[in-house]
Amino acid sequence: MMDDFPWTGSEKQVARKAFNYAYHSECRKIIDTAKSMIANASAPQDVWEVHDYLTQERRETDEKYRYRYSTLILVFAKLIHEGWLTENDLDGLQTDKLEAIRKYLRFWST
Amino acid sequence: MMDDFPWTGSEKQVARKAFNYAYHSECRKIIDTAKSMIANASAPQDVWEVHDYLTQERRETDEKYRYRYSTLILVFAKLIHEGWLTENDLDGLQTDKLEAIRKYLRFWST
Repeated sequence: MMDDFPWTGSEKQVARKAFNYAYHSECRKIIDTAKSMIANASAPQDVWEVHDYLTQERRETDEKYRYRYSTLILVFAKLIHEGWLTENDLDGLQTDKLEAIRKYLRFWST
Repeated sequence: MMDDFPWTGSEKQVARKAFNYAYHSECRKIIDTAKSMIANASAPQDVWEVHDYLTQERRETDEKYRYRYSTLILVFAKLIHEGWLTENDLDGLQTDKLEAIRKYLRFWST
């Protein structure tokens, strides 16, 4: 799914900031989960479970956090849907983009 | 490198116990290192470094800890060389095997 919205300079700043914020927040959650898992690890299998967890999270975040203007609307919709961002974090984007994001969100909530 | 020593039942018990002991000890060290790394993690890159570390350790331990009688002499020599076992942990093995292990150790220490 590709979008062809033009992005102004100030919108790009808003977008980059929100994107980085969400990525750091999600990684923070991954760090906390891994920390909790490793704190309770004692048997060898426990540490490989931490490894499995990180392998999966790395694959998923690598997949999700791709900063391309052609797919950023969908990425932001997904991040709002998952709770990593709110619409307020995207304050400064033009109405066409916010509307497109809301369209995805409405679609997923039905 | 294959050995064709015959293993008695009681030697197999000694071997399995020493093998498991070394594996658990090494995994314990991996857990401690990962715990310390994750405790200091804050940026996303930090958590992927923990993942890289665990990927490497998992590959190495999978490679090292293969319980086959045909290669166990070499495995034990390696585990002693690396400090995960001492000769005392192999108390109960027959002289032919202990001598073969010492031969590897002498070779590596020269």
